[in-house]
Amino acid sequence: MSQHMKDTVQAYFDLFNAQDAQGIADLYADDATVTDPVGTPAKEGKAAILAFYTLAVKNGARLKPNGTTRIAGNAAAFAFTVSVGAMTNVDPDIAVAVELPKGGMTIDVIDTFYFNEEGKVTEMKAYWGPENITQL
Amino acid sequence: MSQHMKDTVQAYFDLFNAQDAQGIADLYADDATVTDPVGTPAKEGKAAILAFYTLAVKNGARLKPNGTTRIAGNAAAFAFTVSVGAMTNVDPDIAVAVELPKGGMTIDVIDTFYFNEEGKVTEMKAYWGPENITQL
Repeated sequence: MSQHMKDTVQAYFDLFNAQDAQGIADLYADDATVTDPVGTPAKEGKAAILAFYTLAVKNGARLKPNGTTRIAGNAAAFAFTVSVGAMTNVDPDIAVAVELPKGGMTIDVIDTFYFNEEGKVTEMKAYWGPENITQL
Repeated sequence: MSQHMKDTVQAYFDLFNAQDAQGIADLYADDATVTDPVGTPAKEGKAAILAFYTLAVKNGARLKPNGTTRIAGNAAAFAFTVSVGAMTNVDPDIAVAVELPKGGMTIDVIDTFYFNEEGKVTEMKAYWGPENITQL
């Protein structure tokens, strides 16, 4: 299970960088929740999650891991940096919560994944806010 | 609030490195929970939390941050490395969950803190496991 959790985190990076929203959604359980960033309303269920990532990958952002994936019980936590030229497709909840720069930026993020017995992600939380954004 | 959350994370590092268990416990709300690592039973309430840190700081471990503290809503997430000569004072729940090396080690960890309105930590979760340990 711990290898599967590490592989899923790697797949998340690879699928995001390949702009494969459906592939990302398939990592999740049907009734999963995604809260990105913490403090905004959770996206509940696969359809909402697919819609969220469909918008997110359109910006052509690149995710680059910072350090090793932490594995604990049925959970994984990992730090990474998002690099994006300009964020033109922004989830409405994010747009309300965080004022994003108009141009390019990097964002330092930490995500947590919780897994069910089938190895699907049931809960994702993303930790980042205004002060984790560096304007380019 | 976001400055306070960053300051609390910095205080957590400083107090741990000063082996000040009472100072760490004072960062927490009276009814806070500490789950370290995720997958072990939570320590509930200030007395249990103080006991946990009293044991933990006895090992003389040093905490060194990896990257910036992520701030999102009422939460903070941060990555760090623990360096310890030999872990002789081990919380019983950790001893059951993770087989620790006899000698020196570093452990890569990610912690999350959730805060209440008074600025106290109500929930701490630590993400690390066997494969985040490097034997020295």
